[in-house]
Parts: sequence; C-alpha cells; structure tokens
Amino acid sequence: MKHLTYAMVGGARGSFIGPVHRMALRLDDLARLTAGCFSRNKVTNAASAEKFSVDPSRVYHDWRSLIAAEAGKVDFLTICTTNESHYEIAKAALEAGMDVFCEKPLSLSLAEAEELSSIARRRRRILGVPFTYVGFPMVKLARDLVRRGELGKIDKVVMEYSQGSFRKVDPAKALEFSRSWKLDPKVAGPSCVVADIGVHAFTLVEYVTGLETKSVLSDLSSFSANTKLEDDASILMRLGAAAGLPQARKITAKAVLNVSKVATGEENGVRLRVYGEKASLYWDQESPNYLTVKYPFRPDAVYKRKAPYIADVSQSSVRSSRIPAGHHEGFIEALANIYCEFVAAVVSRRSCDFPGPREGVRSMRFVEAVLESYRNSSAWTAL
Amino acid sequence: MKHLTYAMVGGARGSFIGPVHRMALRLDDLARLTAGCFSRNKVTNAASAEKFSVDPSRVYHDWRSLIAAEAGKVDFLTICTTNESHYEIAKAALEAGMDVFCEKPLSLSLAEAEELSSIARRRRRILGVPFTYVGFPMVKLARDLVRRGELGKIDKVVMEYSQGSFRKVDPAKALEFSRSWKLDPKVAGPSCVVADIGVHAFTLVEYVTGLETKSVLSDLSSFSANTKLEDDASILMRLGAAAGLPQARKITAKAVLNVSKVATGEENGVRLRVYGEKASLYWDQESPNYLTVKYPFRPDAVYKRKAPYIADVSQSSVRSSRIPAGHHEGFIEALANIYCEFVAAVVSRRSCDFPGPREGVRSMRFVEAVLESYRNSSAWTAL
Amino acid sequence: MKHLTYAMVGGARGSFIGPVHRMALRLDDLARLTAGCFSRNKVTNAASAEKFSVDPSRVYHDWRSLIAAEAGKVDFLTICTTNESHYEIAKAALEAGMDVFCEKPLSLSLAEAEELSSIARRRRRILGVPFTYVGFPMVKLARDLVRRGELGKIDKVVMEYSQGSFRKVDPAKALEFSRSWKLDPKVAGPSCVVADIGVHAFTLVEYVTGLETKSVLSDLSSFSANTKLEDDASILMRLGAAAGLPQARKITAKAVLNVSKVATGEENGVRLRVYGEKASLYWDQESPNYLTVKYPFRPDAVYKRKAPYIADVSQSSVRSSRIPAGHHEGFIEALANIYCEFVAAVVSRRSCDFPGPREGVRSMRFVEAVLESYRNSSAWTAL
Amino acid sequence: MKHLTYAMVGGARGSFIGPVHRMALRLDDLARLTAGCFSRNKVTNAASAEKFSVDPSRVYHDWRSLIAAEAGKVDFLTICTTNESHYEIAKAALEAGMDVFCEKPLSLSLAEAEELSSIARRRRRILGVPFTYVGFPMVKLARDLVRRGELGKIDKVVMEYSQGSFRKVDPAKALEFSRSWKLDPKVAGPSCVVADIGVHAFTLVEYVTGLETKSVLSDLSSFSANTKLEDDASILMRLGAAAGLPQARKITAKAVLNVSKVATGEENGVRLRVYGEKASLYWDQESPNYLTVKYPFRPDAVYKRKAPYIADVSQSSVRSSRIPAGHHEGFIEALANIYCEFVAAVVSRRSCDFPGPREGVRSMRFVEAVLESYRNSSAWTAL
Repeated sequence: MKHLTYAMVGGARGSFIGPVHRMALRLDDLARLTAGCFSRNKVTNAASAEKFSVDPSRVYHDWRSLIAAEAGKVDFLTICTTNESHYEIAKAALEAGMDVFCEKPLSLSLAEAEELSSIARRRRRILGVPFTYVGFPMVKLARDLVRRGELGKIDKVVMEYSQGSFRKVDPAKALEFSRSWKLDPKVAGPSCVVADIGVHAFTLVEYVTGLETKSVLSDLSSFSANTKLEDDASILMRLGAAAGLPQARKITAKAVLNVSKVATGEENGVRLRVYGEKASLYWDQESPNYLTVKYPFRPDAVYKRKAPYIADVSQSSVRSSRIPAGHHEGFIEALANIYCEFVAAVVSRRSCDFPGPREGVRSMRFVEAVLESYRNSSAWTAL
Repeated sequence: MKHLTYAMVGGARGSFIGPVHRMALRLDDLARLTAGCFSRNKVTNAASAEKFSVDPSRVYHDWRSLIAAEAGKVDFLTICTTNESHYEIAKAALEAGMDVFCEKPLSLSLAEAEELSSIARRRRRILGVPFTYVGFPMVKLARDLVRRGELGKIDKVVMEYSQGSFRKVDPAKALEFSRSWKLDPKVAGPSCVVADIGVHAFTLVEYVTGLETKSVLSDLSSFSANTKLEDDASILMRLGAAAGLPQARKITAKAVLNVSKVATGEENGVRLRVYGEKASLYWDQESPNYLTVKYPFRPDAVYKRKAPYIADVSQSSVRSSRIPAGHHEGFIEALANIYCEFVAAVVSRRSCDFPGPREGVRSMRFVEAVLESYRNSSAWTAL
Repeated sequence: MKHLTYAMVGGARGSFIGPVHRMALRLDDLARLTAGCFSRNKVTNAASAEKFSVDPSRVYHDWRSLIAAEAGKVDFLTICTTNESHYEIAKAALEAGMDVFCEKPLSLSLAEAEELSSIARRRRRILGVPFTYVGFPMVKLARDLVRRGELGKIDKVVMEYSQGSFRKVDPAKALEFSRSWKLDPKVAGPSCVVADIGVHAFTLVEYVTGLETKSVLSDLSSFSANTKLEDDASILMRLGAAAGLPQARKITAKAVLNVSKVATGEENGVRLRVYGEKASLYWDQESPNYLTVKYPFRPDAVYKRKAPYIADVSQSSVRSSRIPAGHHEGFIEALANIYCEFVAAVVSRRSCDFPGPREGVRSMRFVEAVLESYRNSSAWTAL
Repeated sequence: MKHLTYAMVGGARGSFIGPVHRMALRLDDLARLTAGCFSRNKVTNAASAEKFSVDPSRVYHDWRSLIAAEAGKVDFLTICTTNESHYEIAKAALEAGMDVFCEKPLSLSLAEAEELSSIARRRRRILGVPFTYVGFPMVKLARDLVRRGELGKIDKVVMEYSQGSFRKVDPAKALEFSRSWKLDPKVAGPSCVVADIGVHAFTLVEYVTGLETKSVLSDLSSFSANTKLEDDASILMRLGAAAGLPQARKITAKAVLNVSKVATGEENGVRLRVYGEKASLYWDQESPNYLTVKYPFRPDAVYKRKAPYIADVSQSSVRSSRIPAGHHEGFIEALANIYCEFVAAVVSRRSCDFPGPREGVRSMRFVEAVLESYRNSSAWTAL
C-alpha cells in the first residue's frame, strides 16, 4: 500500500496541537510527514524537522516557499499556526491546488472564511477543519440517535465548554501570560474564548442536533487581569431546521451555551445535554466513551463505545472505534477519526463525514454574531 | 420538654409537598400538628385529619375559620396550598399575629410579596419560605467556603434546574394534565417554570455566592402541548455586592441559568457550579452529600457530609447533619434543617439561618424581571 | 388513628444508633416513645428522657424493671444497647410477651441467637433486627429483579463493606479508642468487624440473591494498634438454593466479600455486585437512589428510585419510597422502611418483609463459621 | 533521526491485540514494522503484510524463517501469537540474539517462563511483556504515591478484573465459541481466566504496592457452558516486603482479588483499591485519567492526569502523558508508554520502567499457585 504524504506549517516541537496532528496521522498510518515549515525560528524549524525525520531538503523557512515547492508533491497540507495566518496560508495553498487541513478558527473574519470556502469550491479542493469533538465515537452515536428520532423533536440544548486555563497561570508569569498570543488581538483576532473554544461548542451543537442556529445573544466578560479580549461568554441561541428544509425560518429549539477560560479548576469541560420530546442525551468529553440517554418511562440507558448494540444504531460510531468497549480511546483517536474521513475525501474526491468549509464558515458567522450582540446590549442577532 | 404545635392549611393526604412538611417536622420532633384545614373537600379534609391524628374539633372547613380559632393557640401556621392563595392566607395569618411558614412562590406578584414582608416586619412575625435546597448541609458548606474566601472573588455561576416532569405525562392523560393547576394562570400565576422552580435556582445562587442579582435577561418557551405558561427558561444574570456593601452598583459576576420542566428524563436536576478566581465548586442535588472544589494547582477536593474536617470550615453544615458521613441524608432532612432554624426563630424571636421575607421578595422580583425581559425582546432588566 | 407506643433500652442522647431509631419511628409517625431505660448512668438517663419527652414515671434505672412494668403497656421494645446485653434483654422481653426490635448482632453466639428465635416462635412474638440496608428501595428493586429472572441464574457476587472508622481516630485519643467497647471481647463478643458490619453484608447478599450461603472461608487481620479483635476480613463464599428447595445441596454460585474497618478514607462503602447469566446489577449505598443493571447486548440501565417504571417491576420498592424520583431518601428512611414492615407485623400478627429471627440466626452462623475457618487455616467451613 | 525497526509474529489484520501493538508503536514513531509472519494462513499473511506496507521479501511463512533471516536486521521482535507458542518463539528469538516483546502470559508454565528469563539474562537480551495497565499514567502516579509514603504502610488491597466477554457470545455461535482457543487447554494452557487477565491484576497489585505476594488461596469456577478451563476466580492473597528487603518473610498486607470472564455486562472492569494506614487510593481503568486518594481527615483528592501538581509527585506519570489534562488518553497510549520504556532499554541497554522477565515469571508463579490451591481445597499456597 502506497502511503499518502503531507506537509505541515507550524506545529514545531513543544507546541500543543502540532504533535496531536502528527500522532493522529500516525495512529492509523494515514499519511507520512515529508515536508514542513514548522517555525519561523530557523533553529527550531531545523530541530523539529530532524525530530520528525523530515528530509532537510524539504524543510522551508517560510510557508510560501513550502507551498511553491510542495504543491503537487504532498497529498495535503496541515496548518497548525496561530490564528492570524490561517487565512493567508490556506488561501495560498488552495489556490496552488493543495488539499488543506487547517486549524480552527479558519480565519479572523467571516468574510475571510467565506472566501476560503469559495476558493475550495471553485478549485475543487478538500478543506478540513479539526472540530475534534465531532470525531468522538459517542458524538457520532449521539448524532445518529437524534437522526433516527430516538429523542423526538429537539426542544432544548444545554452546552458547556469550560476551561480553567487562564487561572492556571503561575503568578510569577502573569505578565508574560497577558502578552500571550491568545490574548493579542493582532494574532488571535477580535475574540479570545469564543473563537478559540466557543466554535467547538457551537459546531458540536449543530452537528449533534442537525439544527441550524438562527440567532444568538451574548454577554461577554474579561475576568482575568490585563485581558483585552473576552475570556468568558454566556450565550443564548435559537435554532431551527437547516436552510433548505421545510420551516427553516421557524425557531423550534433553544440553547444555553456557557464558554469560559476562567472556569477555575476545570480542565476541558465539554458537556452537552440535548433534550427532545421523547428522550434526552448527555455526553461529557471527560468521560468520552459513554453516552447517557434518559427517558420518561424507562431507566436511563448508558451506551458504551463499541458495545455490540452500537452497530444497530450507528455504523459511523463503530467505524470510528479501534478497540473493544472498556478499553478507552480519547482525544488523539478523535482527531484521527476526523483525519480518516478527510483522507478518504482526499483519496476519493467525494464528500465524507468531517468538518469542512460549511462548519468553518458557520463557526465564524457565530463568532461575529456573538461579538455583535454583546456590542449591541445583548440583543438577538441573526446568524 | 414541651412540644411546639402547628396548624396546616392545604397539604391533604396524597399531595406532594404536604407530607414532606409533616415528615420534616416529625423527624426532629420540632412541632406537632394539632389543627388544620387540609382540603376544601370536606371528605378529604376529614380523612386527612384522621390520618394525621388531628382532633376533629380543630379541623376547619375554611382557612379563615382556622386562623380565627387557632391564632394564639398553635405556635405557627404552615401553608401548603396552591400558589394563588398563598398571599391572602399568609396575610391574614400574619395580621392575626401568627408566625407563618409559607410555600413558594410567596405570592403571585412582587407587590404582594412586599406587602407580606412589610406586615411581617411591622407585626414582628416570623415568616419562613421553604427554599429547601439551601437547607442541604453541603449547600451550607458551599456558602461558608465562599464566605471564607476559599474561591476568591466570584466570577461566574452556571446553574441548572432541569425537570422532565411535563414529559412524564401519560399520553392518555395529556388533556387532563394541560388543565392542571401549575399550567393555569389563575392558580399558578403569570409564570409556570420560573415561579415554580426558577425561584429555587435563583435563591440558591444568591445564598451560596452572597451576591445580589442586579439584572437579568431571558428567553422563554412553551414546548409542551396546550401550555399557556412557559415551561422552559434560559436566563442570563449579572451580579454584584449586596445593597449596602461597597461597590454594590458594580457588576462583578455573571451567571447562566437554565430552568426547565421539559428536560425529558431529568428528575430533579439541580446543579450548581460557582467559579471564583482561586477555586470553583460543584454541587449536584442528585448526589447531595458531596461537594467538589476544584483548584488550578491541586487535586480536586471532594468534601463528604459530616466528615471530621467539615467542622473546621462550616459549623452550619455540621449542625444541619444528623448521621455520620457515608450514611445518606436527603430532601426531607434538608427541609427539616430549614424548619429547625425557623422554629429556633419562633422560639427565640431572633433572626436565624432560613429563607424568609427577603428571599420571598427577591425571588418574586426575579420572576417579574424575567417575564418583563422576555416581553421586551430579551432586554437586560434590572431587579 | 390511635398511635402505637414503644419503649427503648439504650440509645441515650449522643449515641449513634439510638437517635436513628427514634427518627425512623417518627418519620412515618409509626409509634411514639413512651418509656425507656436509656442509660445505666442516672443523670444521662434522666436527661435523655426529658429530651425525648418521656414521662419520668416511665423511665427506668434498669431494663428488668422496664420489662416488668411495660410489658403489655407498650406495643414493642427497641433494644439499642451494646452487643453483650442484646441476648439477655431480648430474651427477657420476649418471655414477658413483648414484641422486640433488637440491634444487630442479635447475640454474642449462634446458640443464643437460636434460643431467641425459638422463644419468639414459641411465644409467637415478633422479633425484628435492623439489617438496615435491606430497607433501601433500590435493594428491594434488586431483589425483585433477581426474583423475576432479569439476571438469569446467579453465578457470582462481589460484595464490599469498607469503613475507615478505625483510621479516623485522633492520635491523641488512640489509647482511649483501643479500649472502646467495639474492641473489647467482653462487650463486643468474639468478633469485631465481622459481627459489626460483616453481618450486614452477609444479609444483603442473601436477601438480594435469594440464595443461601453453604460454606465460607476467611482470612482475618488486626491492622490497627492494640486490637484484640479482627478489624479486617477477606471472605470467600459458596452459595446455593435455600434449604427445602430442589438442589439445595448443590453449590451454584460463588461470592467474594471484603469487610474492613481500616479501609482508610472510606465512610460506609457498601457496594454490591451480582452477576447472573443474563445480566448483572450494581448498588452502592453511597449513591443509594440508583441501581445499575448491565446487559451483554443492550445499554446499561440505570434505575432511579420511584421512577414511573419501577412500579412494573417492584411494588415493594415503590411502597418503601416517600418522595418523587430525584429527591433523595437515605439511611433514616431505610430504617423507617424496616420499621414500617415490623410495625405492620406487630399490628397484623402476620409475616412481613423485614429481617427477623431467620436473618438474626443466619448472620450469627456466618460469624461463627468465619471465625472457625480462620482458626482452621482458612479451610472451607459449612454454615 | 534514524528509525528503529521491528518484526512481528502473529497479529494478522482482524486480530485484537496485533493492531494495538502496531498503533502503539506508530503513535510515538518508536519503530517501524519492516518484517513479519502474521499468520500461518498464507493468504492472510500476505494480505496483512500488504496492508501493513511490509516489503514482501520480508514476509515469512513460519516464524523460524523469520528469526533466521531477521535476527540482527530488525531492532526487536514483537510476539502476538496465541499462548501456546509464546515460549518457543521467544526462546528461539532470544537465543538468536533478538530483543523480544512478548504477549502475556509469557509461557504455559512457570518452568518455561523461568527458562526464558534465564536466557534473556545470559544472552543480555531485553525481554518485555505487555502488562499494559502498568503503563497508564495514573497507575504510575499510584505507585509513586505509595513509594513516597503518602498512604503509609499498606494493609489491604481490593482488586477486581471483571469482564463479561464470555456472556457476550451470540447464542447461535455458542458451540463455535466453546471451541475458541482461549478455552482450549492445548492452546491457552492449563488456565483460562487466571492466565489471561488474572496475571494483569496480579502484576498491577505488585507494581502499585511494591509488595510481593507470598501466598494465595483460590476458588475457581466454570460457569459458561462447555468450558474445560476456569472462567471465574476468587482469590485471597498475603503480601509482604520484596525478597531481599528486611522482614521479607513477614506477611504485612492482605488482598482480595476477583477475576472473571462471566461478569455479565462488564467490559473491562479493572478496579484497584489500595488501603494504607494514612490514606487509600482508587483507580478504575474505565475512567483511567483520574486517581482518587482518600484520607481520614481531609477531603478526597481527585488527581487528574498531567495536571500541574502531578509533576511534584510523579515525573514518571508526567513523562507517560502526551496531551493536557482534560483531553483523554487511553489504552493505546498505555501500551505505547510501555513500548517507550522498552525501546529506551533496547537503545540504551539499560534497565527501564517496563514489565519484563521478573513480572513474566512472577505472574506464571501466580497462575500455578492459584491452580494448585484450588486443586488442594483452597489451601494457602506459597508463591
């Protein structure tokens, strides 16, 4: 079997997300890293390349050179840089004919995201965005249970994405922290917590419910010191059928969304509750191999990843599992699941089950509507 | 030891909350039921009286007669009727000089609640309201941890009160259900879910944080069939120091509050998360004997009711516990804890730790502000 | 309704279990305390009587006087003394014609327990023993699920009863502790942990499975300082159909039982797992309102106390619940449930669902077999 | 960086454990699979090789040819065959000078395991055995907490390894199942559940406590149909200081061990409780990123994988973590952790932190003692 190959921009050794992409791609032997521009720092770039066994001749000091040299050579490009460069790198790569897997947020503005989507469509390029939580097998199960009508009509969603990362700052390094890129509008863009993790929560809600957010209202805060951008968001949402479906203009469901980076003591508190007319479901990313479904007239049902009965309900959940029930899979596997579908699309040129331009654009639409609502005294703001 | 005695209006056999009051009062032998007007139905009233061993000579066919005959004879009056009569019964009893323990909501309107509060103050009567959740020992601990500064400044509160009761309706009885008193504005008042359980959530948030809600915004829904009143509410809150304290006009904290009676499959999902600068806490009423405190730099701490170390932090929590850690206490004990403090006030004529006129009034203020916000396109509305 | 009355021996104020009995009896207004001999200490006895509102004329300085005076006057006698006096008080009371509710262990030896059982049978007296855990509604449900065949044939039981109480001793009081009655063979009898809590675990296993223990083997330890009696026991059990049923001589199931008072940090860790051919169940006393049933081919089912579907499976579970699902009941309610059945038997003179002479005798048989096995190099020892 | 390479015997596509080894080795890019004999079936062998991108010239039809050709070429050999061939393959490979990573149980008999250990020592070969559970970061933390004295002297261990796999057999395939290799003494050896998963439990207990098992007693059962070997084991253990340490002959701790493959509804229930004089710990493999430590005089502490404070207690735990707290790692990562240490030993020729000959031999000693105890009426049997 011939291996696919990929190039990476950003993601030097020591970064958080770069290694996760590389592990995810190795896990299922999906593609081999053969080219890269890992850091603007030459020493770091070279050291990373050596560590990743990338041939020095295919290590580039800037991403433009990489795209110029590697378009047509590697099967796709993974972008793991800071937010402000996603758009221009992705744009250049797509225009050079590369398939692209780009970290979220896809861009700093909705307009940029729409442009990337449009280029991808026009150039028939594959564009993936790692909203990793939709890659968890129990999230696939949740979506499929909703689709099969197990919950009946969806009424309400309660979603939390709570991190305490901004409270895990060593006081001695507080000043340094306050200058970190996630808090710098030039690098992070106009939003911190909403663009960084709010987009995950938003995408997860739409993925599982199959509904579209019609409007939002928000209250934003900056609780940590010296923060120019918001580090906490309280959001209400109104949802309805996706555009194109009957009654798409009607609000049929409501959502409450809490997103925070000052949720002291929380690690990665991604908790989703979906309430339907007939049943409700609960998924907690910190216990990712279980999904609880609650009914009015029978005992709560706890589904376990890859248990025999899952196959009756969600082939998608089974396909995104590697090892038997009771043996845990986690975050790396979830990202690998998204890559499996992305790579399948790269190979087949057909649409597969991974977040792409639609999710990239909708999530930026969400970010802008949330910011606008807050500027506008928390008024309801259409997406 | 001479026993206190009490009279009860409402709470016939077969009702939900009447028996809980009677069990709570018996548990610690606080007071004996010696008079009552349990039902407007004569047969039910007499049968209830016999079941409760109340002397027929002290059973009354209407509450006015009861108050006329029993004021000065019993030590206090407990009111367990439907919402619409709380105000007039409580008013008459207070004016007749009785101490009163009245079910929530205290009245149908803020004005009525304020009037009751004013009468109680003027007549120096004790008025208690069973916001039962503040009676749980681990809620007392939560409040005391916040007071001691264990969490640092409070930033954010995430509160859920989710019931699926409106989805537990036997379809064959749906019509009957839709006529039930909780959905009838004449009996329930202008609000269903907010007045019925939202007030519990609101009171719990203010009790634990020690903060005051300054303004709210809301989105309301009626998801169940034939419902004239709201059965689901999404609420954002802004909080600050209590009136009278420095900086009481400043917003220092935010809250997200989800309240629902259509949360299919939920039983009594009262879940409170409070995030402070230094730590956060989590309490779940369905696991009421535990309180989790999470820190950035040390392991999560799980406090257990009446464990030896609780005494160092919260005498109030210890005092409201009866049996050793590991042996569960629940809802009846929580109401009994509130009665213990109420009865202590009745005996001592001094202020004790139970929800009273202040909480009764503030919770009605909350109900009205939530309704007004929704009528006003979810605008921020001052309390 | 006329009230039943009872007398109590032992259980002075400040003791652990006495107050629980009194609260349990008040909770459902089952019987009123009208006579007692609460302590050998006169001052404590009188003070307790006053606190419990017992008429001084019915307070006795020794239990013999109480029995002499109260037999025929009160409806039953509750015995809450230390182990060594259970037998003689119960014997005297039964012989005086009283119905008796006696704390566990029923006696210090199997022979004594058998004698009490025989007297009760001969004199047609009701004898109850508070193996409180079988009073929990979810334990009744567990038993009824097993009876209905939901688990199929039972193969294996894994039972833990782990307390850390002997590690909660203030070091400054260690000497005092080592002289406490539970460690004094003259007062506690020949066993500490097995007689004190092992009997609970044993009774729970037989109650839920409906099986009888045929033989046991054990390893005992004394880990805490200055302990003459065992504070930790590891026990294997072999079980089969109850005597009188077909194949009663055959071993059909096995059990592992861990019992400890040196399980540091545990409070009251009563955890029961029963594995059958078709399903298994799990109950944890520290989360007592839930019961989990696990299947090979469908999701785990979490039953919630008094949820609507419980009525289809266990009327006994429903009857032993007071308040709706989601509102917790605990240990006091569990003891009250046992008293409800005991009092029903006292009134009706018919057999009801509470632990009595059979459980009292079998649990002593268990204690003696466990001790004998250990003396005999952990050999299998018939019950 | 030059890559290490390895060969594999067994583990064809579709097997359970083979893919896990390959994923584990790819995850951290530890070694590349360059040779193999994946199946005795030629078609399966070739198809597997192609799927794994192994050059056909290095695919062998029998393991002897593989060893003959590949010794000296690959860096190590991984053995994933059924139990009965572990010994002869490992022996041949070690004698050919290869480093070997061999699935458990290391052999069918203690004598064979001792021989392998002796060959490895004599030939200075690295021999690793995947007792995967000791690779979990929270197990490393548990061991290090014990080593640091956080629990004080260890008194008691309660260990469960409960699977329901033998109850997950489709009834239509029951006959086929009863002929499966795990139940065939010729292939599985003289023990089923003890050799298959009991050895994991045993090794985990010794790894975390640092103690040595001195003697065991057992009760074995065959609950599933047509089973020649035991599918359920109840085991008691007595432990003490490791040989060579002072007081190594003294029993200082006891353990209860439940191991089953008929624990209906359980997936992979590996649950470890260790009770010390000062504290106890609890780890549940189905929630592997948490470790709970319980104390008498302070709240339970829940440690979270890779939280900042872990570094103060266990560098080993931190080193075996890849991604931040709150982002789950699971079983594949645990095996990868063992491989990391194994490969470090292969490269450095120094001793590292992975299970090797000692654990391989001791676990076989355990299997034989458990079987002997059962044959001998559950008598205590020295290890």
